[in-house]
Amino acid sequence: MIFAVIGGDMRQAKLAEMLAADGHWVSTFAIDKLRLENGVTQRSSVKEAVDPAHCVILPLPVTSREGLLNAPLSFGIHTTHEIFSALRPDQIVCAGRVDEQTAKTAAEAGIELIDYLKREELAVSNAVAAAEGAIQLIMEETAITVCHSKCLVIGFGRIGKILCHRLRGLGAYVTATARKVEDLAWIRAYGYEACETDKIDGTLGNYDVIVNTVPARILGEERLREIKRGALCLDLASKPGGIDFSAASKLGVKAVWALSLPGEVAAVTSGRIIRDTIYNILREKGVT
Amino acid sequence: MIFAVIGGDMRQAKLAEMLAADGHWVSTFAIDKLRLENGVTQRSSVKEAVDPAHCVILPLPVTSREGLLNAPLSFGIHTTHEIFSALRPDQIVCAGRVDEQTAKTAAEAGIELIDYLKREELAVSNAVAAAEGAIQLIMEETAITVCHSKCLVIGFGRIGKILCHRLRGLGAYVTATARKVEDLAWIRAYGYEACETDKIDGTLGNYDVIVNTVPARILGEERLREIKRGALCLDLASKPGGIDFSAASKLGVKAVWALSLPGEVAAVTSGRIIRDTIYNILREKGVT
Amino acid sequence: MIFAVIGGDMRQAKLAEMLAADGHWVSTFAIDKLRLENGVTQRSSVKEAVDPAHCVILPLPVTSREGLLNAPLSFGIHTTHEIFSALRPDQIVCAGRVDEQTAKTAAEAGIELIDYLKREELAVSNAVAAAEGAIQLIMEETAITVCHSKCLVIGFGRIGKILCHRLRGLGAYVTATARKVEDLAWIRAYGYEACETDKIDGTLGNYDVIVNTVPARILGEERLREIKRGALCLDLASKPGGIDFSAASKLGVKAVWALSLPGEVAAVTSGRIIRDTIYNILREKGVT
Amino acid sequence: MIFAVIGGDMRQAKLAEMLAADGHWVSTFAIDKLRLENGVTQRSSVKEAVDPAHCVILPLPVTSREGLLNAPLSFGIHTTHEIFSALRPDQIVCAGRVDEQTAKTAAEAGIELIDYLKREELAVSNAVAAAEGAIQLIMEETAITVCHSKCLVIGFGRIGKILCHRLRGLGAYVTATARKVEDLAWIRAYGYEACETDKIDGTLGNYDVIVNTVPARILGEERLREIKRGALCLDLASKPGGIDFSAASKLGVKAVWALSLPGEVAAVTSGRIIRDTIYNILREKGVT
Repeated sequence: MIFAVIGGDMRQAKLAEMLAADGHWVSTFAIDKLRLENGVTQRSSVKEAVDPAHCVILPLPVTSREGLLNAPLSFGIHTTHEIFSALRPDQIVCAGRVDEQTAKTAAEAGIELIDYLKREELAVSNAVAAAEGAIQLIMEETAITVCHSKCLVIGFGRIGKILCHRLRGLGAYVTATARKVEDLAWIRAYGYEACETDKIDGTLGNYDVIVNTVPARILGEERLREIKRGALCLDLASKPGGIDFSAASKLGVKAVWALSLPGEVAAVTSGRIIRDTIYNILREKGVT
Repeated sequence: MIFAVIGGDMRQAKLAEMLAADGHWVSTFAIDKLRLENGVTQRSSVKEAVDPAHCVILPLPVTSREGLLNAPLSFGIHTTHEIFSALRPDQIVCAGRVDEQTAKTAAEAGIELIDYLKREELAVSNAVAAAEGAIQLIMEETAITVCHSKCLVIGFGRIGKILCHRLRGLGAYVTATARKVEDLAWIRAYGYEACETDKIDGTLGNYDVIVNTVPARILGEERLREIKRGALCLDLASKPGGIDFSAASKLGVKAVWALSLPGEVAAVTSGRIIRDTIYNILREKGVT
Repeated sequence: MIFAVIGGDMRQAKLAEMLAADGHWVSTFAIDKLRLENGVTQRSSVKEAVDPAHCVILPLPVTSREGLLNAPLSFGIHTTHEIFSALRPDQIVCAGRVDEQTAKTAAEAGIELIDYLKREELAVSNAVAAAEGAIQLIMEETAITVCHSKCLVIGFGRIGKILCHRLRGLGAYVTATARKVEDLAWIRAYGYEACETDKIDGTLGNYDVIVNTVPARILGEERLREIKRGALCLDLASKPGGIDFSAASKLGVKAVWALSLPGEVAAVTSGRIIRDTIYNILREKGVT
Repeated sequence: MIFAVIGGDMRQAKLAEMLAADGHWVSTFAIDKLRLENGVTQRSSVKEAVDPAHCVILPLPVTSREGLLNAPLSFGIHTTHEIFSALRPDQIVCAGRVDEQTAKTAAEAGIELIDYLKREELAVSNAVAAAEGAIQLIMEETAITVCHSKCLVIGFGRIGKILCHRLRGLGAYVTATARKVEDLAWIRAYGYEACETDKIDGTLGNYDVIVNTVPARILGEERLREIKRGALCLDLASKPGGIDFSAASKLGVKAVWALSLPGEVAAVTSGRIIRDTIYNILREKGVT
């Protein structure tokens, strides 16, 4: 098959090389700061890159600022309008974290964007990288070993599940919280301690490491007061963030907000995850 | 609170004792072969046992044969009609694996049965016991150690997830199958090998132990032919069973159908799980 | 190479088949109750079996009673004298758990016995099977799941190390004891709780499962009194045994003495372990 | 008891605070860049700090350069001669990594140094921190997740054992090497792949991460040639180092030499380890 990879960071660069290594014909645009391997053709015009492609892959997130393609590895600046104008409706166009405005711009150009970030399998695989990124941060930011440390993981969603598994694998004492009784049963089923999310008050002083994965203000000033000196609070939640960082700073609680860990810590793995997801999308569409 | 535990096996017996140990007032009926501890009152009339109770707990499964209470620990035989007639609509009545006929008989007596087997948290906790039961069977039925054995777990539902986790914990090489791409991603996220359930053909000869957890005829004659001599096939699926046992027998494949593992292997844990689930039910109803 | 396998149980039978499967020429004597596969030649005279062999493998243990070959799979009864008389000094003769009297009888016939049970690598590999056997027993003998059970492993030698690892892999809370400070450091290094063996008094009531691996009377009457009702005591120590079984019986403590687990639970694996050890012996002698 | 902590890095600082937190009377000298907590008395004269002490704790390593106390947290420069002159023969004096010259200087002052780095329990506990440090480095230096990465650990000593355990806990495929057959048996007993150290040639191209723990030139130019592009080589061996770094650099192999990981990554844990070791030393001497 013929692919075009347009813009993006190291993950897209690795993705292009991996698609080529799989025997596909791959051209890129707006990844011009790097020299790519495996016979990837790096074009200086969108049109040339995109024209022969059956499938066009846009970055994650697709835009950096409104209307602009996310392309940190390009010397140039490119509008999404410019990119979409070069595409055809018969091409499969995949993009990551598509906001409303971008979807609208694409639709005006007759292009339907498939958001690969919404794919569950990508989210799960990303959670693996995110959990490892969190562990790396914990190792960097604490002066104790993970082994025998007391860790609280708030929320038992994708990242929570994997993070608990890895922390346990490193010898930590793991307590996880959830709201639903079945999730609490799952927490116990894996051998961790379970605690209802609403009932963590009064227990927070026990932990050396507290990781929030819930996109809600879980750790406000009152709870932060409980946390013991030297303990680390890590926030892995996106949107609003689960920790009151100004209160943390005021109280002298060490709090770190870790956003978009996957891309940073494991570009090759992240590129591979996107590739596999694209393959799944193509297979479900009957292509390949 | 006041509980009545009516019929059932060792799990119900332990359940009654545990409720009493928690400080509740507990009477039983149709568990007359055992002497119960912790101050449980064993009644010889349903009416006496049931009358003062806020909550009445029937066995899992509630009936042994149609119309008969499941009561292996009773010297007597009791109809469900007899039991339901003794109950009042204002009592909370919990029962396990309620079939249509039993629900109808109860409804005629004005009694609504809450099926605790349908509770997700009970299902998850039971899966822990079922997975351990499976491991015990594997140890008993094979002449190799689990450590370094090659295990295939078909299906990544509740039992599949926990069984993989435990097999890995014992040092086995674990491959799991699923149909959905996100489940395959989860399998990989936990560090196992993943394989689509439909694509196991041609790989079955590699495994020392094959455990089916999918309620569908996965291992028919053709696939059973692939299985290597001395390997063990374990079926944990309920309803129709996933292995063609007559073909297995014909081909000399060692195949074991393991039904209702939880109750058998860990009565105390199973009793505790039912207790916790009853507590959850009561809490959600605003009682307690 | 040419091997003769003389006497023994299922482990020796599997050993003979595996040596043959590796391309060696194998004959047996005193394993006449079974039909062996892979082209093993089953002889009815020691002389015939033994004469062409470079290496002769005797059972583990080599004798059942003084002066008699351990041969439960033979219809006949054979003296060690009879066997040794058939051997030549230029043959490599391996045997398991060689007692003084047997060594003397062999020496009189000019035969030097190499005791493969004294090989450290065999002891380690056997410990894997023993640890699994212990876990199987724990599952069979308790009414709770291993997951979340509180386990005490007394002694951190070969079996202790592996048993802790597996119990943890099944989700148990693991405490191990040792005498030496460096062993206590190892216990903590693997993420378990550590306790000095001499200081277990007063803590024994906490455990659901207590496994002794130390060949000394660790659990006498006084300590057995501490153990909580329903808990399991498992003794894996050989020689004198570490539990006072009559006191246990008197006190109603459930105590099980598990001897020679490896052979029973995993004959194929045990046969393979003996084979690998024999290969190591031959390699060190410069044969092969 | 009364302790004096003289010189050293963050580990000694934490050690002083922890001794004080345990209720001991603690004074320090040559840790003047920090303000210590828990009531530690920071002295500006050795004499004052050391005089009342039953036990004097010198840093790890005891000297930075020949004849100079290792005191990175001091504004001053202090000779070991100056320190030893202030001590008395009746005091217990502990120091880490005592070289011959330092031992001689001490002996001339009538002081016997107990080298706590030679204690096995400290070495084991340090290995935990070192293994975590190695994992942190692997996460930082690779663009793949540890989960599903193929890791080779050369040598199965203290660090090798723990590192394998942790890598496995993170979902890596773990192969370990050793020379002795019993160590190979241990490697298999924990569920890893085993390979003789001398026979790694021809397999090195399979690994994403190769960690050397053996203090010998294991990875010379020829073997480095085998390593696949993008793989990471980590050297945890002290003295001469196990990797030919100039060859690695020439061949474009990513090679990192990680020395003294414990102190850097986990000062609090390292301080605690030294404290526990000091307590063991005192207990064995009958003090306390």
